[in-house]
Amino acid sequence: MRDFLPADKARRERVLSVIRETFLVHGFDEIETPVMEDSSRLHAGLGGDNEKLAFGVLKRGLTPEDLAVARDPLELADLGLRFDLTVPLARFYATHRTALPSVFRSIQIAPVWRAERPQKGRFRQFVQCDIDIIGEAGPLAEIELITATSAALDALGLRGCTIRVNDRRILICLLNFWQVPAELHERALISIDKLDKIGADGVAAELAALGIDTEGLADALATSGWNLMADAPPWLDRDAYQSLIDLRTAVPGAELVFDPTLVRGMGYYTGTIFEVAHPELGYSLGGGGRYDGMIGRFLGTDVPATGFSLGFERIVDLVELADKEEADAVALVHDRKADPATLVALKTQLIAQGKRVRLEPRTKNTKTLLDQLLASGFSHFAFVNDATTASELELRPLAETRG
Amino acid sequence: MRDFLPADKARRERVLSVIRETFLVHGFDEIETPVMEDSSRLHAGLGGDNEKLAFGVLKRGLTPEDLAVARDPLELADLGLRFDLTVPLARFYATHRTALPSVFRSIQIAPVWRAERPQKGRFRQFVQCDIDIIGEAGPLAEIELITATSAALDALGLRGCTIRVNDRRILICLLNFWQVPAELHERALISIDKLDKIGADGVAAELAALGIDTEGLADALATSGWNLMADAPPWLDRDAYQSLIDLRTAVPGAELVFDPTLVRGMGYYTGTIFEVAHPELGYSLGGGGRYDGMIGRFLGTDVPATGFSLGFERIVDLVELADKEEADAVALVHDRKADPATLVALKTQLIAQGKRVRLEPRTKNTKTLLDQLLASGFSHFAFVNDATTASELELRPLAETRG
Repeated sequence: MRDFLPADKARRERVLSVIRETFLVHGFDEIETPVMEDSSRLHAGLGGDNEKLAFGVLKRGLTPEDLAVARDPLELADLGLRFDLTVPLARFYATHRTALPSVFRSIQIAPVWRAERPQKGRFRQFVQCDIDIIGEAGPLAEIELITATSAALDALGLRGCTIRVNDRRILICLLNFWQVPAELHERALISIDKLDKIGADGVAAELAALGIDTEGLADALATSGWNLMADAPPWLDRDAYQSLIDLRTAVPGAELVFDPTLVRGMGYYTGTIFEVAHPELGYSLGGGGRYDGMIGRFLGTDVPATGFSLGFERIVDLVELADKEEADAVALVHDRKADPATLVALKTQLIAQGKRVRLEPRTKNTKTLLDQLLASGFSHFAFVNDATTASELELRPLAETRG
Repeated sequence: MRDFLPADKARRERVLSVIRETFLVHGFDEIETPVMEDSSRLHAGLGGDNEKLAFGVLKRGLTPEDLAVARDPLELADLGLRFDLTVPLARFYATHRTALPSVFRSIQIAPVWRAERPQKGRFRQFVQCDIDIIGEAGPLAEIELITATSAALDALGLRGCTIRVNDRRILICLLNFWQVPAELHERALISIDKLDKIGADGVAAELAALGIDTEGLADALATSGWNLMADAPPWLDRDAYQSLIDLRTAVPGAELVFDPTLVRGMGYYTGTIFEVAHPELGYSLGGGGRYDGMIGRFLGTDVPATGFSLGFERIVDLVELADKEEADAVALVHDRKADPATLVALKTQLIAQGKRVRLEPRTKNTKTLLDQLLASGFSHFAFVNDATTASELELRPLAETRG
């Protein structure tokens, strides 16, 4: 978990603002849920491995006797910090469905928490930017999600991103062709998910170790592209593949790459799955897919749903936003002993003129101070004292003085 | 803890944005800290009664043996959710001091958590808007905080607010005059804090029950105003009172009311204390004061500090912001069977023209649907189908159609 100092915080807020505005323009609506959910909901089997990483929140008013009889720490936690924004969204939709449009497009831009061991690039508190469409069973959902996400990446200046797409049905068809028993599907998918690390032969070897005859599997896993329909490989779910071709046609603004080995970890996906790849990075910037069965777990009746989640922490490090214009940011450098009322009166007059103003006590090393002010985004400064009046205030450009 | 639906969420974001922008213009810088702090820090005696309301976060990897030997639930929690933004700020400043300006003006706009029993108007997760000035020992800090807070209230259109001010030194002087022993000061202040509820005579009676001779106390507690210097009541700390008079002179933009019975609950205040009163409300909208000793608890050396916290949840209910202009929000009402690619192409063209666009499936009751779209902030709509082209798209104003 990290602190954010002013420059970092300002940068994060600006990137979030670009993402939020893009999603709003694309017809999505922002919502918010509490950071804590009922523990039973966080451990309902919908969060995959992330459930194990949920921070538990102690029940209030526990007595020593409660502790003595508890066998499992989970018995002492009735709440937990959310580990993703999908489980809370499903609960939110089930609660508020009647107050929402028949097709509900949500934006959630918010922190989540996972009790990971500290390591480079992994944080225990991090922000996700999720958009979801609930109530749309057709491909319109996938098209809108990918279009809005691509627009957000464009607005941030992240060029060259591609969207890897696959369909859970293609994966299942592939596993069935190699006669992987249903009870081994999850283990097989975990192996396929490691393709980047261990290669197609490595995956085939892992499946062979499970007793599966994998002849030809490595070739299939190396297959990709949009021309498979003519070859019609027998492991390919042709309907699902055609729907991906249609999807590609409908989103000309994004480059879609078919990857039959894309797995996405979460077991709740039922159809299309996708992931954002950046040409210079070995990891994805986000991903998502269709999860038609999940809302039904909370609601009782099935509702189609599709979502796309951007990993904000990865994105914010890549984005090079043009420095925000702070043409009107003024530092009034004053003696520590100057009359406070005079200083604040000067400040108030400049604010009334539309400027951002900071009172800055003078330090021994004026040059260092002015350098710091310039680095902090201030454009002008003036030395002021008790006798300074607004009319004689001479604002000097920091950039020139600094040289 | 509450969910926020789109209309509420949009309203909250707009109010937060006005507050944030005002504070930024006044020279403050926004920072962010993690929602969890070390449990030992949350229970270090700086949070007053709020410490008891901190949600504890279970240690990870606890074994049944850990549970069996624990005597106190706190032994099982190494982290907790922050109950205010002041304790995290003190920790933040102690950690990052060398990277911050010599006078650091922070903005924190963020949720805090308290395990209150659910009741009307009390939430377990709520947002606070804090500004603090660290490193300024003189009255400039109080002047800037009150000026910026008043400007934020003005920008939100909250007219008629007053700032009740007092000084901890005046309270201590008053208690000493009535010869309240030091060990009873806290209990006495708790009584004085109940003045609103039990009246000056009630407070005097409570102190009398502690064995204190309270003759004349009720009259003193009923005293207020800016003309006490001439009378020079013997219980008045004249230096502290003069500093309040000077403060009043320096912030002409806000109406300051001297109230010698203003206590503010937190024991860490050392000088000026203040509270925002609204003419129509029986509760304050925020408050703060000088807490010069607190940062030193984390840093080892004392650093002067003053802060002002606005209670966002109370404010957001009062604010009547003019409805945001959504002149360019368009709903494309379509048949469920319409071709998705055509719909998204239309949507994309309108977005390129600067509009916000939502695809809305047609429902049986068109009138209700259009009413809902108008209520959701959409200004225009069009019925579209597979054959619609952008050139023939006729956008109709929702307000006229609805009548």
